[in-house]
Amino acid sequence: MKLPKEIEIIEVCPRDGFQNIKTPILTETKIEIIDKLVDCGFKWIEATSFVHPKAIPQMADAAQVLKVVKKKHAGRVGFIALAPNLFGAQRAIEAGADAITFVISASEKHNLENTRQTIEQSVAAFTEVCKIKSDCKMRLAVATAFDCPFAGKVDFMHVISLVEAGLAAGADEIILADTIGTATPLQIEALINPLTQKYPQVSFILHIHDTQGMGLANVVTALNLGVTRFETAAFGLGGCPFAPGAAGNIATEDLTNMIHKMGISTGLNYEKILHVARHIQEKLGVEPMGHLSRIASCQG
Amino acid sequence: MKLPKEIEIIEVCPRDGFQNIKTPILTETKIEIIDKLVDCGFKWIEATSFVHPKAIPQMADAAQVLKVVKKKHAGRVGFIALAPNLFGAQRAIEAGADAITFVISASEKHNLENTRQTIEQSVAAFTEVCKIKSDCKMRLAVATAFDCPFAGKVDFMHVISLVEAGLAAGADEIILADTIGTATPLQIEALINPLTQKYPQVSFILHIHDTQGMGLANVVTALNLGVTRFETAAFGLGGCPFAPGAAGNIATEDLTNMIHKMGISTGLNYEKILHVARHIQEKLGVEPMGHLSRIASCQG
Repeated sequence: MKLPKEIEIIEVCPRDGFQNIKTPILTETKIEIIDKLVDCGFKWIEATSFVHPKAIPQMADAAQVLKVVKKKHAGRVGFIALAPNLFGAQRAIEAGADAITFVISASEKHNLENTRQTIEQSVAAFTEVCKIKSDCKMRLAVATAFDCPFAGKVDFMHVISLVEAGLAAGADEIILADTIGTATPLQIEALINPLTQKYPQVSFILHIHDTQGMGLANVVTALNLGVTRFETAAFGLGGCPFAPGAAGNIATEDLTNMIHKMGISTGLNYEKILHVARHIQEKLGVEPMGHLSRIASCQG
Repeated sequence: MKLPKEIEIIEVCPRDGFQNIKTPILTETKIEIIDKLVDCGFKWIEATSFVHPKAIPQMADAAQVLKVVKKKHAGRVGFIALAPNLFGAQRAIEAGADAITFVISASEKHNLENTRQTIEQSVAAFTEVCKIKSDCKMRLAVATAFDCPFAGKVDFMHVISLVEAGLAAGADEIILADTIGTATPLQIEALINPLTQKYPQVSFILHIHDTQGMGLANVVTALNLGVTRFETAAFGLGGCPFAPGAAGNIATEDLTNMIHKMGISTGLNYEKILHVARHIQEKLGVEPMGHLSRIASCQG
């Protein structure tokens, strides 16, 4: 097994986790959870999403959340905001996002469901965003990079084309998302290998959901292929409002536990992550999705 | 990734799953579930455990269960019974077990808790059992082969000594059990590598619990090291009554799903396994532990 000495975990619970909770979460509760996540040691936190409030009402306070956490923690942590289109990205930049996750699906059908745009339109919008980005880091998230809930298995050539277009437009980072959590380790290998060979200068980030229990198996496979950056969500929250059947992200506590036990450093405080997970359960009253939180919950 | 063309999955829910359910399960319900498991295509099913009924009352009907399922399915499926000592093994042989899983822990402390014998006493008993086994297959299960709930990380030299003693006594098969589900892929590699180098003729079986979400990651690691036989439990039931903190086994449906998606055959009918999992939920009223059953359960 070829393992790195350290990896980076990017926390996405305040975006991917919260967006899937129907009950409105108070803005101050969101900020309180982000405060606690900052204290865990994350260098980057995806704090919110600039989507249309009619599509995801939970994210209507995006600008407010971002402004408050930026003011409190600027310089210590980079705050990422998701945007599905040009308008969302403009709002994110205005609100002071340090980085934008611009989502485009490799599956045409999912991109239409998720953003109401064709892939071509999304790429054009992304190109525009890259022109106005200022010092904001541009992250292209390739959604449904493996499987699509509507179109089945995604041809990896579509992913490579999208990565190509994103890099040409000026993307600083590329995220490969297993949006519905159905990719196998074999699919991870089949995509990561050609991508890292074609783009050795790019540090790909994996965003994996743990729907079918293959989350950590996919991480270990990716680690062996040289991937060292992963997006996860505390408490294992998450899903996709426009991807039926998707379960939560890999739980940050599950990944951190495995990684630390394998002697790889993350810069994170594991005990504090468990504490945030318990806080999320108390405040949001949701069932834990991750393994370690579920066990802790069973044992009281 | 070096993957085999086929693997063997041994179903242990009727033993490892049922033994952890406090509410008594009717003998006829157990038999009905085993009938349905037989129909899934398993070649080997661990049907029960010959432990003292005071230790695990749920297993008091061991002989009855074994006799009935043997009569119904003999020749089609091999039925395994667990035994923790000489007396249990004698009862299992009398009741017609096709194979015995004789459990000895690599950790002295866990062996004392689990069997009330020292490892030396357990090995002596196993040696006796091998002499009276007749045509019954003898399987030595090395419990706490990675971590012990009482003594922490287990020195892999203790595992190797126990394997050595088991093979010398006449063991036909060796099972390596991550009893509490805390082993990492790195620990799997650190144990499997020296064992397969030292005993190339032995086909090691892995028995993994999914407490911390590393179950399938450990399977994929083991597949890459040439391991092709795994024990899992339908619905992800399981645990260890004498190992605090252990969660269920890898769910058979979770492993089968991943394996089939990777183009590896198991000889099993995946849809029928999901059907058994639903049946277990209805009949036993327990919460699903596996990923796919939990998702199915959420979606109604």
